[in-house]
Order: sequence, then structure tokens, then C-alpha cells
Amino acid sequence: MTINIIVAGPRGKMGSEAINMINKEENFRLIACIDRKNGGKSLEDIENQPALNIPVFEDVEACFESVNADVFIDLTIPEVGFLHTLAAIKHNIRPVVGTSGFTSEQISELTALAKEKNIGAIIAPNFAIGAVLMMKFSQMAAKYFPDIEIIEKHHDNKLDAPSGTAIKTAELIRESRSIKKQGHPNERETINGARGAEFDGMRIHSVRLPGLVAHQEVIFGSKGQLLTIKHDSFNRGSFMEGIKFSIEKVMDLDELVYGLENIL
Amino acid sequence: MTINIIVAGPRGKMGSEAINMINKEENFRLIACIDRKNGGKSLEDIENQPALNIPVFEDVEACFESVNADVFIDLTIPEVGFLHTLAAIKHNIRPVVGTSGFTSEQISELTALAKEKNIGAIIAPNFAIGAVLMMKFSQMAAKYFPDIEIIEKHHDNKLDAPSGTAIKTAELIRESRSIKKQGHPNERETINGARGAEFDGMRIHSVRLPGLVAHQEVIFGSKGQLLTIKHDSFNRGSFMEGIKFSIEKVMDLDELVYGLENIL
Amino acid sequence: MTINIIVAGPRGKMGSEAINMINKEENFRLIACIDRKNGGKSLEDIENQPALNIPVFEDVEACFESVNADVFIDLTIPEVGFLHTLAAIKHNIRPVVGTSGFTSEQISELTALAKEKNIGAIIAPNFAIGAVLMMKFSQMAAKYFPDIEIIEKHHDNKLDAPSGTAIKTAELIRESRSIKKQGHPNERETINGARGAEFDGMRIHSVRLPGLVAHQEVIFGSKGQLLTIKHDSFNRGSFMEGIKFSIEKVMDLDELVYGLENIL
Amino acid sequence: MTINIIVAGPRGKMGSEAINMINKEENFRLIACIDRKNGGKSLEDIENQPALNIPVFEDVEACFESVNADVFIDLTIPEVGFLHTLAAIKHNIRPVVGTSGFTSEQISELTALAKEKNIGAIIAPNFAIGAVLMMKFSQMAAKYFPDIEIIEKHHDNKLDAPSGTAIKTAELIRESRSIKKQGHPNERETINGARGAEFDGMRIHSVRLPGLVAHQEVIFGSKGQLLTIKHDSFNRGSFMEGIKFSIEKVMDLDELVYGLENIL
Repeated sequence: MTINIIVAGPRGKMGSEAINMINKEENFRLIACIDRKNGGKSLEDIENQPALNIPVFEDVEACFESVNADVFIDLTIPEVGFLHTLAAIKHNIRPVVGTSGFTSEQISELTALAKEKNIGAIIAPNFAIGAVLMMKFSQMAAKYFPDIEIIEKHHDNKLDAPSGTAIKTAELIRESRSIKKQGHPNERETINGARGAEFDGMRIHSVRLPGLVAHQEVIFGSKGQLLTIKHDSFNRGSFMEGIKFSIEKVMDLDELVYGLENIL
Repeated sequence: MTINIIVAGPRGKMGSEAINMINKEENFRLIACIDRKNGGKSLEDIENQPALNIPVFEDVEACFESVNADVFIDLTIPEVGFLHTLAAIKHNIRPVVGTSGFTSEQISELTALAKEKNIGAIIAPNFAIGAVLMMKFSQMAAKYFPDIEIIEKHHDNKLDAPSGTAIKTAELIRESRSIKKQGHPNERETINGARGAEFDGMRIHSVRLPGLVAHQEVIFGSKGQLLTIKHDSFNRGSFMEGIKFSIEKVMDLDELVYGLENIL
Repeated sequence: MTINIIVAGPRGKMGSEAINMINKEENFRLIACIDRKNGGKSLEDIENQPALNIPVFEDVEACFESVNADVFIDLTIPEVGFLHTLAAIKHNIRPVVGTSGFTSEQISELTALAKEKNIGAIIAPNFAIGAVLMMKFSQMAAKYFPDIEIIEKHHDNKLDAPSGTAIKTAELIRESRSIKKQGHPNERETINGARGAEFDGMRIHSVRLPGLVAHQEVIFGSKGQLLTIKHDSFNRGSFMEGIKFSIEKVMDLDELVYGLENIL
Repeated sequence: MTINIIVAGPRGKMGSEAINMINKEENFRLIACIDRKNGGKSLEDIENQPALNIPVFEDVEACFESVNADVFIDLTIPEVGFLHTLAAIKHNIRPVVGTSGFTSEQISELTALAKEKNIGAIIAPNFAIGAVLMMKFSQMAAKYFPDIEIIEKHHDNKLDAPSGTAIKTAELIRESRSIKKQGHPNERETINGARGAEFDGMRIHSVRLPGLVAHQEVIFGSKGQLLTIKHDSFNRGSFMEGIKFSIEKVMDLDELVYGLENIL
């Protein structure tokens, strides 16, 4: 069975890689793009775009009415993405959206509409399946091993420490971990910061070096043993696998799912 | 609530560590031991045993009838252990047994008896919770990442390669992984064995070096990302945590469970 | 002091990255390119080349006579590269060449000529300084720790196993390691290949997975301890650092050096 | 050739393991022990000591005069150890001492005396050869890769963070590294301590978990590559290898050497 797909945001980095991915998959077919300019053109007429005779729309409603799509992929920004997603569900086209930027009100509204329409929808703050599994497994392991340290490593252009993924992981772990202050009660830092950032008794360490991309390991220590769950992300290829997985999965859903962890 | 415990095999390495562990836990109480010699003595009268005034029995039936136990821990050998376990269930004492040596007929018989008696029982081939979680998570991840290699590392006195845990892990992965021959179709070994052992298209590598204890990592590769699940076992302390967990868990069960993975 | 540089092979991947690197360094100046076509053009007139008004030559002699260069970088193929390098030394221009393809006769000839001319020259089979240090340190450590296993990991499009770097590392280690057959004398593989490739008693394991780039770790085991030396290569950026280092270093040399390990 | 050895401190953990090691080595022979009590006894008459008919002395001078020793091993405390070492050199017996507790005046005095006597002597703050090589290699690599982070991991009973080895490593690195403030100039910690302890622009992270023993990795990052040097110490076996190495090495020396790094 062929799945007919619309992509919004074809000129962005994520968008153009998504179009490449769709072209390579035998049972995926790109049938239209939504772009904030270039309306009325064919994709092949836009600079740096692949040689595909695919209509480009600026008007979302017009797009959804003109073509017969199964899935709508939004790779724009949250502000526009919300309106796109709302429109897609109204037109019975299943949305796959990669953003952590929707408000909880927006998610509630989309969830209610998907339920009413009895249609599948996926909103995923993180499309890297490996990272989502790392978080899910960490949450499961924390139930048995409450002594946990997280080491995340990124390139030295990153501004914030700890990373968003490290904090998200610690938040998920907190839900299943029994409260514990780690380390020796009398431990002391002879240089400030040695023991890392404290989060609910756990510790998070942020390494920043040129050469690194995006890496995280969660270490669980217990008498005589260690369990380590590690994710390395080298490039956007990891996100494309998650989008591909979501396109296939959304066809089988009849409700909105927030977060890949709930369908893995 | 105090849990009253009988230990069979108190003079073995596992047995003596289990007794130490029980003594340290506030709500565990050792009330008797079963030994193939030393019947009628007190534990403190046996060489190298702790100074505990605990009766030692050679006769299993006599032991189970004399004391009022909640849990029976068997750390002997499978041949004797089966008879011990059978007798424990008959006396309504919940068994916790660490062996991979029971036949499937024996497990069926014990399962049926536990069901009839409506009593909890745990048989665990591996008490290291971290190792069991590593295997469980690997099985889950294999559903999304079919490209998998296992690296297991042990001290250089180990005779068999790959390790039993590596093969067990690969067998569990096979249940959830879609069939795939990994590597480039034309890959070739310029030195035999470079690509490791083949198991169902996956690869297993066995490292043997002095200094190593018992380690395993399962690596999942996908476009632009890696997921790694790793377990390091340094000493028997890891097994004690699993026995402790099982003692508490078996109190809440009303049937026989085979393998810690089914209660984690 | 500004170093004036000629690059041969400007349209290749390595060549174009080298030109970018040279442009970014304050004390480096690109003054000419050698290309097997495009002679007489300016670099900016060639497709996909940077907007630099730099003369392009097809004739090597003409190039070396027309411009006043300090260093010549060859990023072509060994057959042509040898002639280029010979000509450079004759013109008192210091060559920096990245190839493992020269014969020992060619290297001898170039060495003799550099000595006669009293001029620096660098031929480096591997420009990744990190990889060269990994090999050098491994050779040093092998003197004290004769129990060694190498794990190299590459993407699953690689055809040969073990990798060239792994074999080179093992060859270097062999020079300093006392002869030893590793592992238990009675060890046995229950699946062929589990213990990896044997090289002089050591073991080499080759992992191939999508997502991996080029990684190697050398593990030294001894009673109660492990020493691990690991190199991860993510992209060609690592080679550019080595070329940059060599350009500066070759200015201070008065002879030909083969292999970065001899000047690190 | 047999090396005749005296051990001071036979009842300590290090001392008793050293005696075991000496007994197993074919060309080592234990000929006397120095103990602060038990003078006049034979080793076999002391509780928990091996069944060896070896004289035990309380008086150092008497010991050195009574037996004809090649090497003296001190595994006591720095205060006593200094006097022992001084006496050994005076009696032309080569000392091997494992302490970081001597003052620089004491070391100068011992160095001068060894020179005068033209005799070998080794004082080693760390006998784990792997740890010493890790520090040495790190110092060498820092010359080429100034972006460095250290992650040290220990059991959660350790009080100080960072560890002494981490600080010693950073001090050695500082000698060869060009000064650099690492990370993005505008980086910020959203939770204090995330970026670890700052040491001369580098960062040190201290992980403390049950199950861990003593581990350290030094990570060097550069464009497109990482170099990692890692040491895992699991038990005192690692120190015995260093003592064994030192006993053999001290026979060939004719001066005092401080630190194994200077003879590796």
C-alpha cells in the first residue's frame, strides 16, 4: 500500500532530508508541499530542490482540498505548525509533527479533535528513536537502581548545560526513582562543581569538546554491578528514521499520541 | 513485617554471602539452614560460619516442619535443589532458587504445584538485576534497530566463547528482531574471525583479558545514531541484590515465576 | 610569518577542505593550485571552487617556477604524487604528502634528495593526529602489558575486516610486545569467530554497523587493571588538523620524515 | 639470577599481597621481614601469615646487617619509611618504596645518598603502571590537543572530589598544554556544577556510585576526532605488578628515581 504524503517546510534542513527519505521509500509518495512562498510552482522549479514535479501550495486549505493525502508532515515552526496540524485533522489527513513548542492547551485541542474525527496523529518532541528508548529504559531501570548519574557530551558551541535531553531524562527518571541523596553524606568538593549538577539527589555532568556531536549516557550503580544506557547521535539521519517510523505508525492509530515513547 | 528465611547451602560462596545479606536487612530473619552435613549443630559451631545460634538440618522435611518459615532460598545444586523446592512448596514455604539447571519437566511440575497451593515461587537463572534488564531492554530495542553486535568481555580464565549470557541475549533478541544478514554483502575477512561469531545474522565478539571480570555491551546501529546497553559485573554483590529483591517479591506472588525478567 | 602554499588536487574532497582550512588560517596563504585540467584558469572560474583569484597550473614545473612557494601539499594519487613531490624538492619547496601508496624505493629516493637539498619534507599515511597518537601510545604500553585486544568499529559499507589501521596498530605493537599466546590454553569457540582475528597471539575484533563512522580502541589487560586507548574519527576535519600541523612543522625540518608518529 | 628481598610491613594488606607475589615469582626470594612487633619470631608463627620460615626483625639496622639482601621493599607509613629507606641505602640495599608522603627535603637527601653510594632506588607514589601510563600519555597528547576533560569515577564512599589522581593528571597536563579557556565563551549552567570543576581552563567531572571501584578517562577533543585514554583499577593486583616491575628495574639503576613515569 502506498502512503500519500504532504510535507510542509520543504526548504529547511529537516524538510529537504525528509523529502529525500520519502523518495527512497518504495511505499511512500510525496504528492504536495506547503511553503510560505513559491505557491503555484512545481518543486523542481525551486532552487536547490530535487527534480520532482510536485505542486507547491502557500494556502494550507487549498492544498488539503486539492490533493488526496494520507499523512501530513510538518517541519516548520510551532506557531504555523499548530494551524497546519489543526487543518490537517479537519481534512482527515493524519499529522506527523516534530516539535516541543506546542502549549498544553494546543495539544488538548488537537487531541480532542483527533478523537472526534477518530483519526491518528503523532506529535514528537524528539524523533530520534534511540534517544527516546534511552529515556524510556532509564525510567524503567531507575525503579531498581536509585543511584544514577548522567553524563552528556556535546560540541563546544553548545550554550546551555545540562542539555535539554539530560534534564528531560532526569525528569522521567524522577517519576520512577525512590527519593535518595546520592554520594557519601560527608563528601566534599575541593574544586567547586566537581560532583556536577544536582537534580533531585542525582548528578548530571556536561562535557563540551570540539569533535563531539551529541551523546548521553545514564549510569546506574549498585553493589558489584553497573548498568549503562548510552545514546550517540551523529547527524540528522537519526531523525529521519523516526519520521519514517511515525508515518507508518500513524496509519494504524485512531487518536493523537504525544511523544514517541508512547508508541515504542 | 519480618520475613523468616531458611537457607540451603550455607557453606558455599553464594550461601555465606546470602546469610551476610540477610543479617544486614532489618526485616529479614534467618531461622534455619539446610546442609548436607552438620545436622543438629548450630550455625556458630561450624567452621568459618557467623556467630549465629541458628539450627542446621540435614533432613529437609524435618526442617520445614520444625520452623515456621516464609521463604526458602536454595543455593545448592540443581539435583538436590529440585527436591528441596518441591518440598518447600508442599509445606507452603515460598522458594527462591537460583539455577538454570532444572529441566522443563521439572519447572512444569513445580509450576503446577505452586498453582495448586496458590503460593509464590521464583526460579532465576540469573540474579543480577542489571544483566536481566540489559537483556530485556535489548529485546525491546531490537524491534526498532535490527543491526546489532554484542561485545562480551571476561577474564582470560574463561573457557567458552561466546559467554552464556551473550548467547542468551542473542536468543532473546531473535524473538523480536526482524531477520537480517548484517554487514556489507561483499565484506571479507582478511584474517579469519575478525567479524566475530555469527548468530542469526548478528555478530558476537568475545574479549578475554586478565583484569576483566564480566562485562557485556549490546550495540544497536542505525542511520546517524547508536544505542548501547551495557552491564558490568564486578563481584557477587550483584547477585545478593537480586536475591534480596526476590525474597520481597515472592511474598506478593501467588504463582511460580521463571526468570527475573518476568517480574521486573 | 606567512607560509606560501601550493595545493595539488584542489577539486577532490580532501583538496577542497584543505583550501578552506588554508583560507581560515591567518599565517597561511594559498598562492597556486595544480590540477590535471583547468590550466591557465583562476580558481574562482572553476565550478564549485571558492571565489579566489589563484592561478591554476597543469604543468608542475611551470607552477614551481612561476610562484615563490614555501610548502607544496599533494592530495592527488600516489602515481602522480611521486612526480610532484620529486619536483617540489628539486625546486626547494617543502612537500607535505598524505599517502600510504609510495614504494620503499620511492621513499628512499625522496629521502636522499631531501637530504642533498637540506630541505624538510613530510609523507604521512595518516594525517589524523589522534589516530597516530593512539598507535604510538599502544606501542609504548605493549612493552608493559602484553595482553592486548583491539576492537575497531566502522560503518557497514566497509568491505575489509580488520581495518588497515587495526592491522597497522598490531604491527607496531608487535615491535615492542613480548611474544605471547593470549587467552586460556584450553579456550574454545562454541561459535566460530567469537574470539576474533588472531594476530601474533593478540586478538582483533571488527564491528560493522550503520551509524558508526571510524573508531578503534586498544585494550591492555593486567592483574586488577585495564588501560584503554581509543580514537573516534567523525569526519575529515581530523585530517585537516594534521595537514595544518605538518605545514608548520615542515618549515623547521631539514630532512624527510615518514609518518607523523616520528614528529609528534 | 635470584633477587633477595626484605619486606617491611608484612601484616598490612599491601605487605601480605607483596609477600604472596614474591613467593610466586621464581627469581624472587623473601629473606627477612621488618615489623614493628614480632621481632625474633619466624613469619610462620605470626597469625594469618604464610607458612614461611623467614626471620622477622624489629630493629632495622640488625636486619640489614644480618641478611644479605638485594632489594628492600617498604610498605609501611612515610614517617617510618623514610628512616628505613635511609638505612637501606647506607647498607647498599636498593629500596623500592610506595609513598607520596615524603617531603621534598627527604627526597633530596635520599637522592644525594643514593648518588654517593652509586646505588639504585625507586620511590613511587603510584605503583599502578596503567595509571602512570595514562598520566604520561595524557601529558604527551595535551601538546597537540588543548581541549581536555577528565571524568573520574569512584565508589560512593569516597569523600574528596576530584580524586587525587585526577588532580595529579591535570597538573601534569598543565605542563605541556597551551593555556586555553575551554567551552563556548557564553556557555551557562542552568544548574550549578553541570560543567564540572575548572582547573586551568580544563574541566574535571567526579562520578560517585556504588559498584564503581576506581576509574578515570581523559578525553581530548579536536575537529572531527576524539582521543580517549582510560584506566580502570579493580583491585590491589595492579599495584603488585608495579612492585614486581620495580624490583627488577631497581637492580639496573645507579641512582634514585622518583615516580614510575620516569622509568617507563
